[in-house]
Amino acid sequence: MRSREAGIVIGEGIPGKRNLITDVKGVRAGHETIDEGNVHTGVTVVIPCEDVYRTKPLAAVHVINGFGKSAGLMQVEELGCIESPVALTNTLSVHAALEGLVCYTLETHESIRTFNPVAGETNDSVISDIAKMAVKSSHVLNAIVAAKEDFETGSVGAGRGTVCFGFKGGIGSASRVMKINNHEYTIGILVQSNFGLMKDFTLNGKPLGKEISEQLKSREENEKGSVMIIAATDLPLDGRQLKRLLRRCETGLIRLGSKLGHGSGDVAIGFTTANTTGFSEEVHSFEILREDLLNQPFRMISEAVEEAVLDSMLASEAMKALDGRIIHSLKEFI
Amino acid sequence: MRSREAGIVIGEGIPGKRNLITDVKGVRAGHETIDEGNVHTGVTVVIPCEDVYRTKPLAAVHVINGFGKSAGLMQVEELGCIESPVALTNTLSVHAALEGLVCYTLETHESIRTFNPVAGETNDSVISDIAKMAVKSSHVLNAIVAAKEDFETGSVGAGRGTVCFGFKGGIGSASRVMKINNHEYTIGILVQSNFGLMKDFTLNGKPLGKEISEQLKSREENEKGSVMIIAATDLPLDGRQLKRLLRRCETGLIRLGSKLGHGSGDVAIGFTTANTTGFSEEVHSFEILREDLLNQPFRMISEAVEEAVLDSMLASEAMKALDGRIIHSLKEFI
Amino acid sequence: MRSREAGIVIGEGIPGKRNLITDVKGVRAGHETIDEGNVHTGVTVVIPCEDVYRTKPLAAVHVINGFGKSAGLMQVEELGCIESPVALTNTLSVHAALEGLVCYTLETHESIRTFNPVAGETNDSVISDIAKMAVKSSHVLNAIVAAKEDFETGSVGAGRGTVCFGFKGGIGSASRVMKINNHEYTIGILVQSNFGLMKDFTLNGKPLGKEISEQLKSREENEKGSVMIIAATDLPLDGRQLKRLLRRCETGLIRLGSKLGHGSGDVAIGFTTANTTGFSEEVHSFEILREDLLNQPFRMISEAVEEAVLDSMLASEAMKALDGRIIHSLKEFI
Amino acid sequence: MRSREAGIVIGEGIPGKRNLITDVKGVRAGHETIDEGNVHTGVTVVIPCEDVYRTKPLAAVHVINGFGKSAGLMQVEELGCIESPVALTNTLSVHAALEGLVCYTLETHESIRTFNPVAGETNDSVISDIAKMAVKSSHVLNAIVAAKEDFETGSVGAGRGTVCFGFKGGIGSASRVMKINNHEYTIGILVQSNFGLMKDFTLNGKPLGKEISEQLKSREENEKGSVMIIAATDLPLDGRQLKRLLRRCETGLIRLGSKLGHGSGDVAIGFTTANTTGFSEEVHSFEILREDLLNQPFRMISEAVEEAVLDSMLASEAMKALDGRIIHSLKEFI
Repeated sequence: MRSREAGIVIGEGIPGKRNLITDVKGVRAGHETIDEGNVHTGVTVVIPCEDVYRTKPLAAVHVINGFGKSAGLMQVEELGCIESPVALTNTLSVHAALEGLVCYTLETHESIRTFNPVAGETNDSVISDIAKMAVKSSHVLNAIVAAKEDFETGSVGAGRGTVCFGFKGGIGSASRVMKINNHEYTIGILVQSNFGLMKDFTLNGKPLGKEISEQLKSREENEKGSVMIIAATDLPLDGRQLKRLLRRCETGLIRLGSKLGHGSGDVAIGFTTANTTGFSEEVHSFEILREDLLNQPFRMISEAVEEAVLDSMLASEAMKALDGRIIHSLKEFI
Repeated sequence: MRSREAGIVIGEGIPGKRNLITDVKGVRAGHETIDEGNVHTGVTVVIPCEDVYRTKPLAAVHVINGFGKSAGLMQVEELGCIESPVALTNTLSVHAALEGLVCYTLETHESIRTFNPVAGETNDSVISDIAKMAVKSSHVLNAIVAAKEDFETGSVGAGRGTVCFGFKGGIGSASRVMKINNHEYTIGILVQSNFGLMKDFTLNGKPLGKEISEQLKSREENEKGSVMIIAATDLPLDGRQLKRLLRRCETGLIRLGSKLGHGSGDVAIGFTTANTTGFSEEVHSFEILREDLLNQPFRMISEAVEEAVLDSMLASEAMKALDGRIIHSLKEFI
Repeated sequence: MRSREAGIVIGEGIPGKRNLITDVKGVRAGHETIDEGNVHTGVTVVIPCEDVYRTKPLAAVHVINGFGKSAGLMQVEELGCIESPVALTNTLSVHAALEGLVCYTLETHESIRTFNPVAGETNDSVISDIAKMAVKSSHVLNAIVAAKEDFETGSVGAGRGTVCFGFKGGIGSASRVMKINNHEYTIGILVQSNFGLMKDFTLNGKPLGKEISEQLKSREENEKGSVMIIAATDLPLDGRQLKRLLRRCETGLIRLGSKLGHGSGDVAIGFTTANTTGFSEEVHSFEILREDLLNQPFRMISEAVEEAVLDSMLASEAMKALDGRIIHSLKEFI
Repeated sequence: MRSREAGIVIGEGIPGKRNLITDVKGVRAGHETIDEGNVHTGVTVVIPCEDVYRTKPLAAVHVINGFGKSAGLMQVEELGCIESPVALTNTLSVHAALEGLVCYTLETHESIRTFNPVAGETNDSVISDIAKMAVKSSHVLNAIVAAKEDFETGSVGAGRGTVCFGFKGGIGSASRVMKINNHEYTIGILVQSNFGLMKDFTLNGKPLGKEISEQLKSREENEKGSVMIIAATDLPLDGRQLKRLLRRCETGLIRLGSKLGHGSGDVAIGFTTANTTGFSEEVHSFEILREDLLNQPFRMISEAVEEAVLDSMLASEAMKALDGRIIHSLKEFI
C-alpha cells in the first residue's frame, strides 16, 4: 500500500508517474534481501545513470547528524561529483558495500586505478543479528543487476530490518514534478528509514504516534536509528545549489516528528543528471537555475522526503524483533 | 500576552521562572526602540555575563541559511568563545551595531587593541523605511544600559518592525529547565522573528495560518525575512556539543511551518556560561556532559525556540506596513 | 620598488601586464590613506567589476585562520556571489567600512532594501593608534572614487600601518597569466600584509629573516598580525572550484615562512568575472573548467600570493612604531 | 637511515625518545607488508591506546584535499572521538581495512551493535598492481597483533608501494616534545607518504628536487598521490583546538614543496589521549590548554610532519615501478 492509496496526501506538489526516485530519467534502483535465521537485512542500490563512472553526475552531500558510517562522502564534497552507484546496507556491513562497488566497477571498466565507492547505512540490529556480518560483496552485485525503474518499496533490501518511529520502516520512495519556465523538472527521493520515537510521530499535524504509543503501552528509549536519504534530480544546479536543496531534506523528517536525536545518523546524498563532470573538453557549459527559483524545489524536496518515509512505513508488514516484540506496521493503524 | 497565558503549551518541558533567556543566570537583555515617521526599528542586545570581554564564555554558531549580514561569527567559530554582547538590529544597520559594541568595549576596558563585536540582523523593510539608516551607535549603548533580567518582548528593539508568518513578529523569548543527575540546568532563547509565510503557519499541528490566510484573502510571495536566534545555557558543554545543540534550533522553526526559504537568513548564536575561556592559567578544567545525555537538551532547545517565536508574535500588536496594509497580530485569531 | 625590479623572481609563471590584481579585466583598486598624529591607517577597496551590485560575480571565501573580524562572508558562502566592493581597513574600523559600502550602494542604486557589504581587516596597532577609530565611512567613499587600474602598492590605504615578518608591510599585488586551450586567463591578487615573525621570513628558500633578525637583535613575540587576500580571476570556475583555488593561497604564505600562528587572522576572498549570478533568465549557462586543469591555476595563485606579499614589503618605506622602534623596510636588506 | 643520522635537522624542536608517533604514551603502530608478484602493498595500523573502543580518546579530522577514500571521518567529526585503531592501506582496499577493524572489535568486545572503523589510503598503483585487491581483512588483524612501540618505518605496511616527490616514499614517523608550565607534552606523527613532484622537492630551503630531476632527466606529470597524516598527542585540548592543531600539518608538507595538487588526497586524523569521551559519569572534566599557548604546538606539529615525510623517504630503498622505471631512494642523493 502506498500513502496516496491510503488517502494520505503530503503537501501540495504533484508526484511523478511512479512516485519513485526513478521518475528522474535514467535513475534505477535495486534490492538484494537477506533472510537467514535471525538475519533480516540486505542491500539497496541507486544507480544515477548509465555508466556513472564515466558520466560523473554533479553531486553533493548534506550531513544532518553525522553519527554514522557512510563512506565516500569526502570525495563527493571535494570534487562535486559521484562516480559510483550508491549502496545502502546495515551499519556493520559498509565494507561489503564498498567491496561490491569496487568489484563491479573494476569488472565493467578497464584499467581503473582509483574509484570512489559511496555507501550509506543504518543500524537494523533491533530486528536482525547484525554481528553475523551476513552481507557480502556478491549481494551488492546482485542488487545492481536487479536495478530497474519499477522497484519495490517496504521491507526489502537495506530496509529489510529497519524500524521507523517504532513502526516497521524500510525503503521508501517518492517524487515531485515542477514546472519552471515551461520546462518540467523532477525531484526523486529514496530513503532507508530507521529513526524516530513512536510518541513523536506526527501525520499531517496529527499526533498519531502519541495516541498509538499510549494504546500499545510501548516503552521507548532514546532515538537511536538513522535515516539515509538519496536525492535525485534533473534540475540545472551547481554544487552549492544542490547542497542548499539537500539542506531542506530535514524539514520533511521534522514534520513527521523527528527531533534529530543524538544517536540518529542522518545523511542526505544527492545528484543532478542535468550537469555532469565527466567531460573531456577543457571548458564545458553547466546549466544553472536562478537562485530565487530554488524556493519551489526547496518545498518539493521536503514533501518528497516526508512522503518517502511514510511510503517506507506503509509498504512494510509487521515483523518480530530479536527480543520477541512485534514491530507493528503503520498500516494497522490507518 | 504570553503564549501560556493564552493557553498555548509548546512541548513537554518546564519553563524557567520568567520563561525568558534571562533564566540563565547572569544573562541580561535590553532594547532601544526607534519610532520616527516611517522608521520603526531598533536595537536589542543580549549580554551573556558580567564583563563578557574578560570572561569570554564558550560559544558557537549554527548557520541555518546564510542569506544574512551577521558579523563576528568567523572568530566565534575559530576561537570558540564570545567576548561581546550580541546586538540585533535591521539589515542595513549592522555597521551601527558594530560601532556601538566597539565604543562600549573601548570605554569599559583599558588599552584594548582588538575586539570581536557580534551582531545579527533581519530585514524590517515591510514596516520601516530601512534606507534611512536611522540606527546609530548611541542606540546600541542605550540598549546595553537598559539591559536587565526582566525585559519586554514583542514589537520592541530590533523587533519593532518585523513580520513573522505574515503576522506582526518581534522579539520573543522562552526558556526550559531540566534535571540531569540532580543538577538543574537551563536553556534560554531570544529570537528576532521575521520569517515565514502565513499559509505555512502551524500551531501544535493545526494549520492555523492557512485558515487565516484564506479568511484574510492575503497574497503572499516568497519567504523573505529571517530569524536570529540567541541561545544561552549553563549546560556543561564543549564547543562541538554546543554546536550540536544549536543545530536543533531549526526543529522549532520547522514545527511552526518554516520551509527554510531561500531568502530567509536564519542564524543561531549560542553560548554557555558553564565553561569560559578567559582564564589565565596554562591549563584549565572544562565540565563536559556525557554525549548521550544531549537528547534532552536537544528536545528542550527545539521547544524553547518554538515558544520564543510564538511569544514574539503574541506579545506584538498589529502595525501598519509602509504600503498601507495592516500586519495583524496573531492575538486577534487566538 | 617592485620585486622583479629588485631581481627577485617568484615561481615559474608569467605576470600580467601590470603585475597587479587589475590585470583581471574590469577590476579596479583604490586607497584612502589617513595620517593624523599617531594615526597611520586607511582604507583600500577592490571593485570586482562595473556595477557589482547588479552583476554579482561568482565568489567564494576560504578562511585560513578565523581570528579576525571580516564581515559579509556568510552570505558570500551561502549564495556564492559578491555584490559589493571589498573594503579593507583596520580591526576596529570594520563598522566604518560597512557603513561606507552601504552608503555607496544606496546612493548608486534605487530602492535597495538589502545588500551584503564585504569588509576585511588586519590590526595595525603597532604603528597606528587604533583606538582613535579614525576611519569614517567617507574614507571608504573616497577610496571607491579613487579606484583605478594603475594603483599604488606599499604603505598606502589599509596597508599604511601594517607590519609583515617584522618589516614594514602594506598593500601588495601581483598577477599571473596562463594559457589553457589557447585561451589566456589571469589570476590577480591583492594583499593587506600584517603577519609573520622576522625570524621565519624565507625568500626563495633562503632564511633571510633569521639572519637579519640576529643582525638587528630584534625581540619578537607571538605571531599576531593577519593577512587579507583578495583574489580575482577570469577563469571559468564554479563556486566549489573557486574555493579549491583559494585553498591554495596559503602555500604562498607558508613558502615565505608563515606558521599560520594562532593570532593571525588569515582570510582569502575571491571572485571570478567569468561567471556572474545577477542574471534574470530562469536558467543560465556557466562556463566550467575541467577539474584536472586546476593544477596550473593552483600553482599560479600560490606564486601570485607570495609575490604580492613580497611586493607589499618592497614597496614600503621604514616607519616608526608607536613605541619608538623603527620598523625597517625589507628594501634596506636586499 | 633516519634523517637526523643523515645530519638533516628539521626545525628547532626536540624529538621524543624514539622520534616516533609512539613517543606519545600508550600509542602503538604495526605493519603487515604484502609482496606477491606485482603486488607490493600492505596495511599499517595506529592504535591510540589500550581498549580504544571503550576509552574513546578525543579526536578530530582536517581534510587538506578531499580527493580520497578515507572512511569513518564523518562520525569522528560529529562525536569528537575515535573508537577504532586507524588502518592505512591502498585506495582500492579501504573495504578490507574496514572489515578487519570490524572483525577485530567484534572479537574483542561483547555484544557490539555499532562501531565506527577509521581507515585511510593512498594510491600505490605506480609500484603495485592495485586492481588485484590483494589486501584482506586478515592482514589488518596481523598488523594489529604486530603493533608495538618500536616499529619500523620506510617501505613497509601501507607504505610498501608508495612514491613521494618522485622518490620512494613509505611510512614515516617523527615526534616533538615541548614544555608548557613545567609539564612535558608530546606530539607524534605517522605519515603514509605518496605525494609531490620531484621538481618541487625542497630540503630546508634547498631546491634539491629540481637539481636531481634535471640530473635524472625524469619526466613528471601532475601531482597524483596523496598523504595520510596520523597525529597523536597528550596535549590537553578540546576538539576545536585539536582541529586547529591538525590545520597546521600542511605547513610541513608545503615546506617540503607540496603545491596541494588537485589529485592528492591529503587528510590529517588526530587524537589526544589527555581527554577521553568514554566516561560513564553524567559530567566529566576535560583539561584545556589556554588558547594562545597553541603557537608552540602549531610550530611543533609542522616540524614533525615535515620530518616524518622525510623519514618515510630516507628509510626506504629504491624499488622498481610496474612500468620498469626505477623509483630512486632519496638516500642515494644525500
